[in-house]
Amino acid sequence: MNYQMIGFVIGRILLTEAALLALPLVTALLYGEPAGPFLIPALVLVLVGLVLSGRKPQRTALYARDGLAVVALAWIAMSAFGALPFVISGDIPNFVDAFFETVSGFTTTGASILTDVESLSRGGLFWRSFTHWVGGMGVLVFVMAILPMTDGHGMHLMRAEVPGPSVGKLVSRMSDSAKILYGIYLAMTVIEIILLLAGGMPLFDACVHAFGTAGTGGFSSRALSVGTYQNAYYDIVIGVFMLLFGVNFNLYYFLLVRRFREVFRSEELRAYLLIVTASVLAITVNIVHIYGSAATSLRHAFFQVSSIITTTGYSTVDFNTWPTFSKAILVVLMFVGACAGSTGGGIKVSRILILLKSSLADMRKMLHPNAVTTVRLEGKPLTEKNIRGAHVFISVYLVVFVVSFLLLSLEQFDLVTTFTALAACINNIGPGLEMVGPMGSFAAFSPASKLLLSFDMLVGRLEIFPMLLLFAPSIWKRRLVFRRPTL
Amino acid sequence: MNYQMIGFVIGRILLTEAALLALPLVTALLYGEPAGPFLIPALVLVLVGLVLSGRKPQRTALYARDGLAVVALAWIAMSAFGALPFVISGDIPNFVDAFFETVSGFTTTGASILTDVESLSRGGLFWRSFTHWVGGMGVLVFVMAILPMTDGHGMHLMRAEVPGPSVGKLVSRMSDSAKILYGIYLAMTVIEIILLLAGGMPLFDACVHAFGTAGTGGFSSRALSVGTYQNAYYDIVIGVFMLLFGVNFNLYYFLLVRRFREVFRSEELRAYLLIVTASVLAITVNIVHIYGSAATSLRHAFFQVSSIITTTGYSTVDFNTWPTFSKAILVVLMFVGACAGSTGGGIKVSRILILLKSSLADMRKMLHPNAVTTVRLEGKPLTEKNIRGAHVFISVYLVVFVVSFLLLSLEQFDLVTTFTALAACINNIGPGLEMVGPMGSFAAFSPASKLLLSFDMLVGRLEIFPMLLLFAPSIWKRRLVFRRPTL
Repeated sequence: MNYQMIGFVIGRILLTEAALLALPLVTALLYGEPAGPFLIPALVLVLVGLVLSGRKPQRTALYARDGLAVVALAWIAMSAFGALPFVISGDIPNFVDAFFETVSGFTTTGASILTDVESLSRGGLFWRSFTHWVGGMGVLVFVMAILPMTDGHGMHLMRAEVPGPSVGKLVSRMSDSAKILYGIYLAMTVIEIILLLAGGMPLFDACVHAFGTAGTGGFSSRALSVGTYQNAYYDIVIGVFMLLFGVNFNLYYFLLVRRFREVFRSEELRAYLLIVTASVLAITVNIVHIYGSAATSLRHAFFQVSSIITTTGYSTVDFNTWPTFSKAILVVLMFVGACAGSTGGGIKVSRILILLKSSLADMRKMLHPNAVTTVRLEGKPLTEKNIRGAHVFISVYLVVFVVSFLLLSLEQFDLVTTFTALAACINNIGPGLEMVGPMGSFAAFSPASKLLLSFDMLVGRLEIFPMLLLFAPSIWKRRLVFRRPTL
Repeated sequence: MNYQMIGFVIGRILLTEAALLALPLVTALLYGEPAGPFLIPALVLVLVGLVLSGRKPQRTALYARDGLAVVALAWIAMSAFGALPFVISGDIPNFVDAFFETVSGFTTTGASILTDVESLSRGGLFWRSFTHWVGGMGVLVFVMAILPMTDGHGMHLMRAEVPGPSVGKLVSRMSDSAKILYGIYLAMTVIEIILLLAGGMPLFDACVHAFGTAGTGGFSSRALSVGTYQNAYYDIVIGVFMLLFGVNFNLYYFLLVRRFREVFRSEELRAYLLIVTASVLAITVNIVHIYGSAATSLRHAFFQVSSIITTTGYSTVDFNTWPTFSKAILVVLMFVGACAGSTGGGIKVSRILILLKSSLADMRKMLHPNAVTTVRLEGKPLTEKNIRGAHVFISVYLVVFVVSFLLLSLEQFDLVTTFTALAACINNIGPGLEMVGPMGSFAAFSPASKLLLSFDMLVGRLEIFPMLLLFAPSIWKRRLVFRRPTL
């Protein structure tokens, strides 16, 4: 482990976080709120950041395990410091609550312990939603976009932070890839803000909801979420943009450089759209007796499906009151998640495709033991390592889920609340069912459970391994043996 | 596919089933009930059996896929014919209901559509429980024990029917292995009957409950299951025997031949006992406020844990009313299941060990890419094929579970009922929670859902692949190309 370099990178990230606090600070000042809640944490971050990254280490090499450690530690540190504004302003006086809310923000979960979100300060509300935007594309990717870093090292960081079974570089230089991704991300967010403004939404609300959509987070400035407005136009704009932010960003790059074939041939994109369409239609039929009109049912079904599969978590209606079949579909979508390389969470459509295809191939082999089968995704043959990776992901995911489920059940809430609260956190969605339904909150959980769920949100956002490897004893042992880097 | 040979083996199995009907027939006659319900199906079975197996095919080779097809078709046919006694006697007049009940019997699930079990005829009750005993160790293993068959072919049948990730032959001849297994199975069942009789249980009830324990099935002749007796002695005898029947039967053979080291060193056995002990203690502490005394709580916790992890499904109390933490433990145990090579269902402890160990090894490899790791179970290194097999099992299991869950949710029962009804069927347990709790029944499900759950019970008992491969188009195509057999 290259501890000096790990400290250096984390220092840079904290300095970046200090800079990001400027936006909520400006917001607070514009609304005549005190500057302290943002100024004090920013100063602390600058101080700690400078101490950590003041001197560039001589050995800058970062290997795979360093990358995992950097990402895990950086996200924990960012969340701990990012919780300070809420504590100082008194918006969320309890530190554990504020930490939960900030982790929920950065991980783009959107689960909230707040029961009266509209009483928050404007600065606090802005920061809360802005964490979604920062966490969506990844803060390390951001740092890579603005700070020069040797390519080989950036790859390990990006690999550990960008969701999905495999990370493809768009262009040869890592930092250029990061810049392109953030450029597309920013442009799409701005377009959504403009569209919402065009529909008459106030600027503040438009920013908050665009941040929540872009990061597929789901924090709203309103208690009733997007349902507050009862506005079909907003539902459609936000519903469509949620879906768009759930698509692999590489495809947008391909669109920009006119490689249309790769976009239209994308198996993951097709599977994603197929799941969305089938779910929307099934739910529409199932709920039409509630809303009377097919158009209204279709609109609500589309919005909720788009919100849940992309793991955003906005709601326009209380789907907790929907029939069991519709709720069952939503529960399944909670686990499916969005596309790899998007800002969404969950297991990811491409990982599910890998599991399905490789399992089918293995079953075919049972019938025809001598047949030679190659499993392909997006036209490319999958390596044994890809397939094994997806299998191990699922196994470890299930273990974390089961252990967390047992611990969380100690709270003695009902089984559906316990199960869906956990599913909503580990898949970075936000709302679950029953007590944690779209109109509920996580306020009633104990501090221990809030920390557990915070851990699960980070596990979900960073795709398990960075967080779990923090528990490996060998990661903390100083090793004198020099190991060759591997990709 | 060797259709002639498949027909031949299935014919033999149906003849065996006809012979097995003699026992409930005698029971019916002893209780002065009509003989028709058992005589007519027996005659039909003999007729069909003779037609199918009248002439021994010239080519007797059975390959892996033939073995899978035989097992799947045999179990479906056995259940369809085995349902006739219930229909003819009027115990369960509806054929779909009777089929569900019989599948539930043979697969040792123990889920029932009956709301008043005590009104059944004695012959019907006996047959219902006897199917557990037959299905527990496997009807093909039984046929192999009594009919001579070339070894290489028996292996494929046994592999497809005996639960667990790998099947070890005890002795070189397959049919001898089958005889040894059935001998141990019969002896243990008789010992349990004697112990229950010694405690004062009537012979009929003792047989019924010993059959249910031995097959880890769970059908009872009483509406309140084992709880009817309110007898600590019965609870302990049945509780301990459930645990014993959940152990890999190979270990009993090792005990017989004095290979004690292999028994005490068995990792699966240790893990199984560890899970049981930890669950019993956790639940005892969690329910002590309900029952007052620690001893009573311990007894109930032990019985229910033993019943659920072995996938038997007997109950002495209505655990549906237990606190969420205890229910959550039981739900997790529903999936864990018993040991491989036992009569229990579920995912199996050894398969979970394989997944955990191989996932840990893969995670270690992320930290130390150059380290060489071998994953071992029971002292032997696991092959890539073993590991991949366990991973594929979990993936396909999840797919079947999710699809069944969505279809079952169309019934519009609550989510906990839907989820645990499915979990109880696919893991061959019997009772779930809420509507299908220990005091409930599956009566309210529609015929379509009952057929779906029957399919899931067979999927669980035969460990997925035989049932799923029936849907593979290529299995029904006549292939002229001769393929070499592979193990």
